[in-house]
Amino acid sequence: MRSAAVVGTGLIGTSIALALAARGVAVYLRDADLDSARTAASLGAGTTEEPPGPVDLAVIAVPPGLVAEVLAEAQAAGLARAYTDVASVKSGPRQDIAARGCRTSDYIGGHPMGGAERSGPLAARADLFEGRTWVLSPAPDTSTDALNAALELVALCGAVPVVMDPGAHDRAVALVSHTPQLLSSMVAARLADADETAVRLSGPGIRDTTRIAASDPELWVEILSANAGVVADVLDEVAEDLRATVGGLRALQSADAEKRAAGAQAVAEVMRRGNRGRSRIPGKHGAPPTRYEALTVLIGDQPGELARLFGDAGQAGVNIEDVAIEHSTGQQAGFVTLSVAPTAVPVLAAALRERGWRIRG
Amino acid sequence: MRSAAVVGTGLIGTSIALALAARGVAVYLRDADLDSARTAASLGAGTTEEPPGPVDLAVIAVPPGLVAEVLAEAQAAGLARAYTDVASVKSGPRQDIAARGCRTSDYIGGHPMGGAERSGPLAARADLFEGRTWVLSPAPDTSTDALNAALELVALCGAVPVVMDPGAHDRAVALVSHTPQLLSSMVAARLADADETAVRLSGPGIRDTTRIAASDPELWVEILSANAGVVADVLDEVAEDLRATVGGLRALQSADAEKRAAGAQAVAEVMRRGNRGRSRIPGKHGAPPTRYEALTVLIGDQPGELARLFGDAGQAGVNIEDVAIEHSTGQQAGFVTLSVAPTAVPVLAAALRERGWRIRG
Repeated sequence: MRSAAVVGTGLIGTSIALALAARGVAVYLRDADLDSARTAASLGAGTTEEPPGPVDLAVIAVPPGLVAEVLAEAQAAGLARAYTDVASVKSGPRQDIAARGCRTSDYIGGHPMGGAERSGPLAARADLFEGRTWVLSPAPDTSTDALNAALELVALCGAVPVVMDPGAHDRAVALVSHTPQLLSSMVAARLADADETAVRLSGPGIRDTTRIAASDPELWVEILSANAGVVADVLDEVAEDLRATVGGLRALQSADAEKRAAGAQAVAEVMRRGNRGRSRIPGKHGAPPTRYEALTVLIGDQPGELARLFGDAGQAGVNIEDVAIEHSTGQQAGFVTLSVAPTAVPVLAAALRERGWRIRG
Repeated sequence: MRSAAVVGTGLIGTSIALALAARGVAVYLRDADLDSARTAASLGAGTTEEPPGPVDLAVIAVPPGLVAEVLAEAQAAGLARAYTDVASVKSGPRQDIAARGCRTSDYIGGHPMGGAERSGPLAARADLFEGRTWVLSPAPDTSTDALNAALELVALCGAVPVVMDPGAHDRAVALVSHTPQLLSSMVAARLADADETAVRLSGPGIRDTTRIAASDPELWVEILSANAGVVADVLDEVAEDLRATVGGLRALQSADAEKRAAGAQAVAEVMRRGNRGRSRIPGKHGAPPTRYEALTVLIGDQPGELARLFGDAGQAGVNIEDVAIEHSTGQQAGFVTLSVAPTAVPVLAAALRERGWRIRG
């Protein structure tokens, strides 16, 4: 890719432009708000001049409701050889594009999964999509050239492409982005008028849960408008869980032991499903959970034996991932099983033996 | 404080014992599960032997439903000169204590605000409550000696004491701990049976929102049981917001522009209240937001001017907290206002002047 146009120099457009410019692509910036395009240029994201001819790829980085209109204009003006967008929903723009009769052979839908807590070009960063997932939604007649141009864009931004159809994409973002956003806001909303002393008790749990509650309402209403039906359906499912949980909590106050047990069951069931869902969320870089191997060590019955063992393991530079203890009957002594990365087993065993620990097996 | 008893060697009890032992207090550990007490001793948290006489303070670190029973036994046995508990709710235990006719002159309720995602002595850390809030709920006749013993305990654990009555405490933890826990679980629960591709789109937003959804359901049912009515009331308020939001989202799909506007308003309103609540949550160490001072710099109209300015500011070792730009009409040149810590203003001004920037005012 030698040249690109970025239409819309908000957070997303400017971040993409910065990434492309940093990799030597000639980037042409456009925005209905000239100041915004100038700010992006001033950040080094490209130039506000007109391109001398059609660019290799035009990235339409405007709100979902404007994608079809901007695409139609750009195609009519012959701005680029291929087009993509970055709208956070995919079904609505696809329908608008069909309704307008835009060409889709040179178009492919796109959605880079990035943070939307901040907005505007000043919040842009060339590495905003580094390691992130970038959904591509080809139309039935999207050309291989258009697909390849989009794949190159994703690669230049350091992101990981995933192909999905618009409907599956929109349901997915309702689950992993839109619903968490709204529920985070609702948790935080409880504190808007709470006593100052109550707010002081806030710890890391509510801090993490409500981090995204600081997001911009205007921006989010725009995002949610384009996916409103799907998000409302997911929230209806949440409301069902909420009803069951409130019912369970009220039952926990009952004088009847059977009702209390049913209440506990109802609350635990929602939390267990939460455990299951949480365990499916990939880690920071989508890395699969590592498997560990076990090393079993005999400990004596002096106070502080475990602390000494952990200290010795730490000095060996080995990370203990999990620990299980099996005490001998009636005393503190027993066997401690340490889980560590497979490659660390021989290192740890040698280091512990040297420090006088007895290792089983 | 020279000696303490910790009754219950789970995560909280063992962490307290570790903190006290590290500061030279003789700690006597007890648990209905002997293995748990031995594990705590083995970690260096104290001894499982009997104390030679009454200790200075007994910390009752058992589930809320058992506090009164354990307190009654300990008082009958003359275990300590003062007693406190660490139960995550305060009204229920207070009522149980009254119902049993326990002495309250030598007792003060307590609740150290700490993470409950993990459990058991092996997860314990001496610094678990470092910098955290620790609620103390004196009974009407709690003696100054008992209050001071508890204050010393809080200080030895590095925590910050806050005095609250049991009712206010329980409403507060419903807001900042119990409600976030349940809603985090409900967000995560949506992913339990979602498509694998959908889960792959997860980013930092849902990751933070659902971190606490990994918490132990059994432990949480116990915590919630003791505060069920209050939590159910808060969840009813959330359900009200949820109804309004679903209504707003459905209205956003209406053909009627007025209905759409009302829908947008309803959704934005919940998010704005979320913004307000979020902004009240104190930072990591309860530090108030810093105030910044502004420095205004003239930039030229070359592409990349802003990037160069930020680079120069960075080399001066100054952190830019906020930026605003005012472009001159019709060109990229204009004024950039940088917000920095007050002490950094002269440093930054000198460094920028030296590099040829023009500073206003």
